[in-house]
Amino acid sequence: MKIALLGAGFIARFYASTLHAQRRKDSIHIVYSRTRKTAEKFAADFRVPACTDNMKTAIEDPATEVVLIALPNHLHAEAVELAAAAGKPILCTKPLGRNAAEAKAMLDSVEKAGVFAGYLEDLCYTPKILKSFEAVANGAIGRVLWTKSREAHPGPHSDWFWNKELSGGGAIIDLACHCVEISRNLIGKNIRPIEVMCWAATQVHPIEAEDHAIGLVKYANGAIGQFEVSWTFRGGMDLRDEVMGTEGSIWLNSFLRTGFEMYVAGNKAGYVAEKAEQASGWLFPVGDEAHELGYPHMFSDMFDALEENRAPRETFYDGYVVNAILDAALASAISKKWEPVQLDDWRGIQVQETDKEAIPYDEQYYLVKKELLPGGLYKLILKDKQTGRIIQREITQP
Amino acid sequence: MKIALLGAGFIARFYASTLHAQRRKDSIHIVYSRTRKTAEKFAADFRVPACTDNMKTAIEDPATEVVLIALPNHLHAEAVELAAAAGKPILCTKPLGRNAAEAKAMLDSVEKAGVFAGYLEDLCYTPKILKSFEAVANGAIGRVLWTKSREAHPGPHSDWFWNKELSGGGAIIDLACHCVEISRNLIGKNIRPIEVMCWAATQVHPIEAEDHAIGLVKYANGAIGQFEVSWTFRGGMDLRDEVMGTEGSIWLNSFLRTGFEMYVAGNKAGYVAEKAEQASGWLFPVGDEAHELGYPHMFSDMFDALEENRAPRETFYDGYVVNAILDAALASAISKKWEPVQLDDWRGIQVQETDKEAIPYDEQYYLVKKELLPGGLYKLILKDKQTGRIIQREITQP
Amino acid sequence: MKIALLGAGFIARFYASTLHAQRRKDSIHIVYSRTRKTAEKFAADFRVPACTDNMKTAIEDPATEVVLIALPNHLHAEAVELAAAAGKPILCTKPLGRNAAEAKAMLDSVEKAGVFAGYLEDLCYTPKILKSFEAVANGAIGRVLWTKSREAHPGPHSDWFWNKELSGGGAIIDLACHCVEISRNLIGKNIRPIEVMCWAATQVHPIEAEDHAIGLVKYANGAIGQFEVSWTFRGGMDLRDEVMGTEGSIWLNSFLRTGFEMYVAGNKAGYVAEKAEQASGWLFPVGDEAHELGYPHMFSDMFDALEENRAPRETFYDGYVVNAILDAALASAISKKWEPVQLDDWRGIQVQETDKEAIPYDEQYYLVKKELLPGGLYKLILKDKQTGRIIQREITQP
Amino acid sequence: MKIALLGAGFIARFYASTLHAQRRKDSIHIVYSRTRKTAEKFAADFRVPACTDNMKTAIEDPATEVVLIALPNHLHAEAVELAAAAGKPILCTKPLGRNAAEAKAMLDSVEKAGVFAGYLEDLCYTPKILKSFEAVANGAIGRVLWTKSREAHPGPHSDWFWNKELSGGGAIIDLACHCVEISRNLIGKNIRPIEVMCWAATQVHPIEAEDHAIGLVKYANGAIGQFEVSWTFRGGMDLRDEVMGTEGSIWLNSFLRTGFEMYVAGNKAGYVAEKAEQASGWLFPVGDEAHELGYPHMFSDMFDALEENRAPRETFYDGYVVNAILDAALASAISKKWEPVQLDDWRGIQVQETDKEAIPYDEQYYLVKKELLPGGLYKLILKDKQTGRIIQREITQP
Repeated sequence: MKIALLGAGFIARFYASTLHAQRRKDSIHIVYSRTRKTAEKFAADFRVPACTDNMKTAIEDPATEVVLIALPNHLHAEAVELAAAAGKPILCTKPLGRNAAEAKAMLDSVEKAGVFAGYLEDLCYTPKILKSFEAVANGAIGRVLWTKSREAHPGPHSDWFWNKELSGGGAIIDLACHCVEISRNLIGKNIRPIEVMCWAATQVHPIEAEDHAIGLVKYANGAIGQFEVSWTFRGGMDLRDEVMGTEGSIWLNSFLRTGFEMYVAGNKAGYVAEKAEQASGWLFPVGDEAHELGYPHMFSDMFDALEENRAPRETFYDGYVVNAILDAALASAISKKWEPVQLDDWRGIQVQETDKEAIPYDEQYYLVKKELLPGGLYKLILKDKQTGRIIQREITQP
Repeated sequence: MKIALLGAGFIARFYASTLHAQRRKDSIHIVYSRTRKTAEKFAADFRVPACTDNMKTAIEDPATEVVLIALPNHLHAEAVELAAAAGKPILCTKPLGRNAAEAKAMLDSVEKAGVFAGYLEDLCYTPKILKSFEAVANGAIGRVLWTKSREAHPGPHSDWFWNKELSGGGAIIDLACHCVEISRNLIGKNIRPIEVMCWAATQVHPIEAEDHAIGLVKYANGAIGQFEVSWTFRGGMDLRDEVMGTEGSIWLNSFLRTGFEMYVAGNKAGYVAEKAEQASGWLFPVGDEAHELGYPHMFSDMFDALEENRAPRETFYDGYVVNAILDAALASAISKKWEPVQLDDWRGIQVQETDKEAIPYDEQYYLVKKELLPGGLYKLILKDKQTGRIIQREITQP
Repeated sequence: MKIALLGAGFIARFYASTLHAQRRKDSIHIVYSRTRKTAEKFAADFRVPACTDNMKTAIEDPATEVVLIALPNHLHAEAVELAAAAGKPILCTKPLGRNAAEAKAMLDSVEKAGVFAGYLEDLCYTPKILKSFEAVANGAIGRVLWTKSREAHPGPHSDWFWNKELSGGGAIIDLACHCVEISRNLIGKNIRPIEVMCWAATQVHPIEAEDHAIGLVKYANGAIGQFEVSWTFRGGMDLRDEVMGTEGSIWLNSFLRTGFEMYVAGNKAGYVAEKAEQASGWLFPVGDEAHELGYPHMFSDMFDALEENRAPRETFYDGYVVNAILDAALASAISKKWEPVQLDDWRGIQVQETDKEAIPYDEQYYLVKKELLPGGLYKLILKDKQTGRIIQREITQP
Repeated sequence: MKIALLGAGFIARFYASTLHAQRRKDSIHIVYSRTRKTAEKFAADFRVPACTDNMKTAIEDPATEVVLIALPNHLHAEAVELAAAAGKPILCTKPLGRNAAEAKAMLDSVEKAGVFAGYLEDLCYTPKILKSFEAVANGAIGRVLWTKSREAHPGPHSDWFWNKELSGGGAIIDLACHCVEISRNLIGKNIRPIEVMCWAATQVHPIEAEDHAIGLVKYANGAIGQFEVSWTFRGGMDLRDEVMGTEGSIWLNSFLRTGFEMYVAGNKAGYVAEKAEQASGWLFPVGDEAHELGYPHMFSDMFDALEENRAPRETFYDGYVVNAILDAALASAISKKWEPVQLDDWRGIQVQETDKEAIPYDEQYYLVKKELLPGGLYKLILKDKQTGRIIQREITQP
């Protein structure tokens, strides 16, 4: 695939490093930046044959087979509109919009134009998370009760992130978009997000938007998707996910504890990893950053989907749902109560909260719990089916 | 010290194992249980010279120097009243009351009687948490922004926990009492808890009370103390704490990942640890359970305090504050909004939310953030003191 | 690149999974297996257009641009000879030979034919190990004193591994080839391996070859490269590396503790990871196995090297040195003393053991050690430059 | 118990901190130091009622019920002789002697006098190691094949350690005494250590003794006890143990990764833990150091044993065996071959190397190995009972 890359900043460099590596067959043939000099430097660094400071030129270049949007949030809508108008397949970085209305407009735009539109939610493509999605889908941990996705670091790398107007907000729009979509994948994309409770505050930085927030998203089946996001975390980039199911649990640490530990007494460690704060002492590098962050698997899915004429794992519709959930989170942070998720266009199923089924123990009792005690006995907690009375019983055989 | 132990169940056994070990000089001289047979077995198991099924007998025994309450929640009040009436020092297991009103009555009772009254909040005495309290108090991680305390396991071991009437509730009253008090120690016991937002649900078990809950407690200085409690967790007993400060972070895992890993192919592992669910595969035992759970350090503080005529680290007043916070959590789970913490008797300080102080970079700018980039450059995010405009700048020297 | 793949077993499947993924541009155009049926199934599974049970046919196919040898050890020599005779570039899986003589013959063969010859030592290409090599090369941890590489699991997957005649030995030839080459990369490939001390035993299995061995390889600069290999480990595949340098340390866990932990109460986990022994309880899957084992980076280096007309990171010469070290290890296991590494063809440098340079503290003393004590004092251990006498001194400033 | 403590240095302070804490009933009633001023300071710091610079005075004090030797290695023999002469029970810190001859003389001395003599091998008393001993003894991991005990740090804290004359050597005598005794406990104290292979070198410090060594101790039943000791490790105090059994594995990390992680951006962390090298960045404190190092459980066993008139877990005989093994290690480091362990006085059993028993699979075959493959099949490796031929077979049911 011949790619027109829009943007030449931090994320664009990550994308290009991924695409132009590991003998992949897709390549960036033209790069656009608002600043010609930046575009030229980028083209030189990544051996891109052409560059421009005119977005339209890049998109409409006849060689362009797919448009890859790696621009600041406030420029997504314009780029999508131009690419859709040109009838080109589109890949857009996260978050899709600065809010649900903007995302919905983009979604409508690509659907009207009938073009392929992939949502570049990289953290839903890390190898660990892909295996987790598969394990959960196969029932390995039973019914999902709760998911927690955490992204926290000392703050983003470019000026526009810190400007609420340009980015659409603070830590929530920047980071919770990842967390929310991870939860949706685990709980089930077909399950409707109902309402959100969120705390948000500006605890440290001299900015208007929140630099720390925690939210609970309640889904129609009773599952909770929690997000924890912060620009105030000290210690590097904290990317962790957890899942609790009725039959099991998952714990992921995607960046700070991945089996790579290095102690450096002096100061010759050099670059350690994205958002690392130290170059001496105990350091926790990651092997191949792009890989751990999901970029290779994400682009493979996107281009494969395009060639196979199927939807990618993450679509513009997903981006829209995520934005709607984040809107509710921001509203809740202000109203201080649970706020409904406004989804005019719901494409999943309608479910009721799952009924819990009591496990029968014998004729008289339900089993509430069984536990192995020190000494080798098993303790049972039982509930009388008739009276509801709860008793305990110790037995020797499990 | 000669101890009258009230109760002979799971927690009483843990207490006795701790007290009658490691050549400690305090000892249980009489044990009370509602069932004579249980009292007798306990006395035999732990070499306690006397036993009784009359609570008053145990308390008023002339040899009794301190009364140790290890009874189910609904019996705390009665035991405290009797011991206070007898003018004996009292140690009461957690939670103090089933709600703030009950706790307040107990507090009033001991204060009126003028007896020593220690609150047995063991998880505030684990060696790791004590060192964390000290590090935080010394300013090692700066101003505390957020704490998270998590206790989750597959459910408690005795029937009365599962009966809302007797226990006072579900996972919140059972587990969040620990979490809330850990947060108070980290944020500062003098800082007033203002309001609570809480989600709670009965996701798995055939019971009335919640078996899973998450809460956010907001303190007067803007810090947040989060609790995560569950009786639905699969994989053992999950005891983790985290703290984010402006200058650092703390991560504790107190039970499931403590540097002890054992793979057992067969099934000869025997008892592994409290609430362990497996006896084969990868197991994660703990070294000395009572120690990891804080019991030895807790009793040392209590008896030392009594002898030194000072307050222990954890008092009945603390127990009351914890109950008040939990009451607000339960109210919030129903009202679905932030609920104020009702504290008629506040003994801490009055603070306003901390003002964030912007860090000056030079005459024109505040420093928002500094980051080391791959390639060795430093990127600065700066905010114009006058205009508020945010810019970025790359520099070669830090 | 058009690849002729020789072999269709376990490792061939791993190679094909890697090559035919992630939109890579190289592809297998023909696969050879000794059994036609196996070749056909493989071709179908990996969409390889052609297959054969004649090795020569695959190699000499005009479309074949590179020959990829994924055969059992005893067939490497023949395959290399045929490919060299056909003048085709060769990639050969590890170990190169069953012993140094066989490896030397292969090396001579490809050098005489003047063909490209890459040694497929995948564990020297894992992302973590590549970053470690770079950090060490940059001096991040000072002078390397000791390296340890451990590979242990419950035993290999194919019959021929267990036959000493076909494989060339047991756990040493199978696993220590990885470990030895990792150490060489860390200590410096230019540094001559001098002698080896090795213990080996058949502790568990009904076989002739060793199923457990530990070896120490001494290098000319005094550094030690330790290997620990076993077919008797219980708990999965244990892949760990450690490095001690004068200024730092590295700890890698490449498979069992990589930040991915899953508890499964039932038995629906399915395939977890290579050599995993359980499908329930606490499981430790890996994200993308091929990636964690180094395959993608290895093939990228090989094909890039071929196109860029440069040597790959790992060459047949490296394979030969590894075999020579393993020969010395096997000899030592029998003689029970250090055995010299026989290298007729040494292409590195000649170094003497590094002289330790004492660090001056002041006019009178060398500094032996400095340590922070509880209480805040620093303790110095000093050695008199003249008399050699060692004293200690406590100071308040570091 | 009334304790006369001989020594007032680093280890004496650790002992006193342990004994005079947690409301223990034993106490130091007199402390001896070669320097009166040191004795006085120590007495003041730990509330010891009396102090002296005359060793005999402390020992022969009528109140002295037990003599606790915490002196540098070269003073153990003299102290033991004096205490034995006085007929007092003796506890002696590790290593018992500077070599086996010295240890044997001490052993003979206490046995002749008929006094209680405990060997203070603290690392055999850590809660994790005690549970591991118990699990291994219960057969949880089957027959022990290999143990590894590692102690490494940046070097000891007192001058005399660095003087070969006074300490008896370098890292081996200082640290491997722990490792060897841990291995003996795991493999079985009744199993005779046969021979030792050891590498040792002075890689970093300006001293005569070794600062880094690795040894393999072979036991009569074929098990190997490996030790890794170093004064050159960077990163703190590395205390790790591993065990491989036929049915399981154990991994312990006793100091650097125990579930306590703290990131400190500034430099206010203060004292972190013994041998910690940093006070900022990612730090890994331990909860209660004395506890993690085994002191409380060690003293409890010693005093309980004395009162119960039984042998403690660790005796002077154990200390003698350890010294004999270390002597062989030092000899091997020089001779460069396996050296026999000289034990004139062996009190264990005589065993032959365990015969491996092949596991029958069916009438024709032994089972060599079974493995779950990706895709759900099981692969069997089988050995023909008659011909010895090894084959593989894939089956669908386990």
